[in-house]
Amino acid sequence: MAATASLQTAPVPEGAPITVCEVGPRDGFQIEAAFIPTAKKIEIINALFASGIRAMQVTSFVSPRAVPQLADAEAVLAGIDRPEGALITALIPNLKGAERAAGCGVDAVHTVVSASETHNLKNVNRSIDASLKDFEAVFTLLDNSGIAVEGGIATAFGCPFEGIVPPEQVARIAKRYQDLGATSVGLGDTTGMATPATVRAAVRAIRAEAPGLGIGLHFHNTRGVGLACVMTGLAEGVTHYDASVGGLGGCPFAAGATGNICTEDLIYLLNESGYDTGVDLDRLVGAARLTQATLGRELPGQVLKSGPRLRRYDPGLTATAAG
Amino acid sequence: MAATASLQTAPVPEGAPITVCEVGPRDGFQIEAAFIPTAKKIEIINALFASGIRAMQVTSFVSPRAVPQLADAEAVLAGIDRPEGALITALIPNLKGAERAAGCGVDAVHTVVSASETHNLKNVNRSIDASLKDFEAVFTLLDNSGIAVEGGIATAFGCPFEGIVPPEQVARIAKRYQDLGATSVGLGDTTGMATPATVRAAVRAIRAEAPGLGIGLHFHNTRGVGLACVMTGLAEGVTHYDASVGGLGGCPFAAGATGNICTEDLIYLLNESGYDTGVDLDRLVGAARLTQATLGRELPGQVLKSGPRLRRYDPGLTATAAG
Repeated sequence: MAATASLQTAPVPEGAPITVCEVGPRDGFQIEAAFIPTAKKIEIINALFASGIRAMQVTSFVSPRAVPQLADAEAVLAGIDRPEGALITALIPNLKGAERAAGCGVDAVHTVVSASETHNLKNVNRSIDASLKDFEAVFTLLDNSGIAVEGGIATAFGCPFEGIVPPEQVARIAKRYQDLGATSVGLGDTTGMATPATVRAAVRAIRAEAPGLGIGLHFHNTRGVGLACVMTGLAEGVTHYDASVGGLGGCPFAAGATGNICTEDLIYLLNESGYDTGVDLDRLVGAARLTQATLGRELPGQVLKSGPRLRRYDPGLTATAAG
Repeated sequence: MAATASLQTAPVPEGAPITVCEVGPRDGFQIEAAFIPTAKKIEIINALFASGIRAMQVTSFVSPRAVPQLADAEAVLAGIDRPEGALITALIPNLKGAERAAGCGVDAVHTVVSASETHNLKNVNRSIDASLKDFEAVFTLLDNSGIAVEGGIATAFGCPFEGIVPPEQVARIAKRYQDLGATSVGLGDTTGMATPATVRAAVRAIRAEAPGLGIGLHFHNTRGVGLACVMTGLAEGVTHYDASVGGLGGCPFAAGATGNICTEDLIYLLNESGYDTGVDLDRLVGAARLTQATLGRELPGQVLKSGPRLRRYDPGLTATAAG
């Protein structure tokens, strides 16, 4: 999101460009148990880009032992189309990941630290400060490389272990990222705890603590309010949102609940609201159908099931009940 | 919604009361194929009221031949608890329905006409003007009875046959309702075509055409944007929303898509945003579980699956992947 994340503080005006960063190939695929063949991953990624998606977190350079599903990160990045102007990013956990990513010609890397000490400890077995200290080497490596570093902050709206995460804590980490050289941070709603109030508070706290730092928002729809949180983000001037094709992904603490907000539903919302996403909804739904067919199960996306808003029906059909 | 529907034009301030009208027992139950025993309906309705729900569309006085599921309307209304201050409404299609409803001591009746000629013709086999003309007898019957008439407008945000429904057409019908004596109208998103832009346009058109008329909003989540539309309603000062326990209900034109916006998810959104709904989320989720058990299938509600926001987990559990 480095190139695109929002700096505005007024509501995003109608017609303004919005960047929707597709994260399904990373955040969604990583929790799939069965290995998705590399060629299939590439086919889905290319279909997503062909719909007009302008930014994508294509893969993750984590240990292949930790996440075997993404062990083909290099092969995926070597095989995909790279549309003119598209921003290609990858998640990296550490310096080794950054070196691998840099070798693949990504436009940006995405680091992650949790805003909750307990979650960070569980996730990467170190303190928040230790994680941020480790990232210094990543920023040094990529300084003047043309590869941006997006500072990811997980559990930014709440932690499944600690509960409330103070916005000041999120802002403190954002400021550290800015000092390290990040041009943007991405606030991750790791377990689906974001609400309009927590989104507003976090965005405002960062703007106060780290003026000029771009902000991207990454919501899960675990409790059904993901797109309501996007409405708050838009009201706060944020122009960068992560989403996942078909609503792929999930929260391990909410069995049966949906995962990331769904890219098609988000694009539908934004396009119908007059924003410029650059994405053709019909082609995007086609990419979601391809994803669904590849994974062999129904995905939670709603537009995927219901089709575009102005799909017309023959009045000869049985009408709906009133209401 | 007569007693509660919004008259404000500024955004609803934090802390303000919001009326969530539960419509599951009418809009949800009516499409269930298997008859739900009257005692079970009463148990669910009472559980919903016990959670703090302040308004409910309890049943419908349509022909028992047309909707056998709601043939027990009188028995349901005779059997339920009626908490102090709760608004009890019923849908009525015509004068006969109004007479039956009045005999059951409802607080308000809800009429329905479609904003689309084609849809109204399909639904009730008459023109919009003929429907409104028919309602004159309903208003006459209930004049000075203490029973309010809420003017329902179906397909207010789009029609599956005609496509776009002009906001001026919605406002024209709203004005006719106001002239007949309605104190509020309810805008129905019958097949899930509402978007923030269409909601804003319809609300503003009604305020311009029929000043002083209350407005309630009834969204379906067919395309995933139901709660985003609520955010727009709140920004436009609307304080009355319909929703359905567990997300019951559905749109016959979108197989597999969700139905009405889900009451628990809406209450979660509103409570977390600092509005006064009067509803205890835990008790409401209990009522949704009862509904789910009664119907014997999983309902689309998300909070029902994921639990409250601040549910805490033992860090000894396996943590989530980053992001």
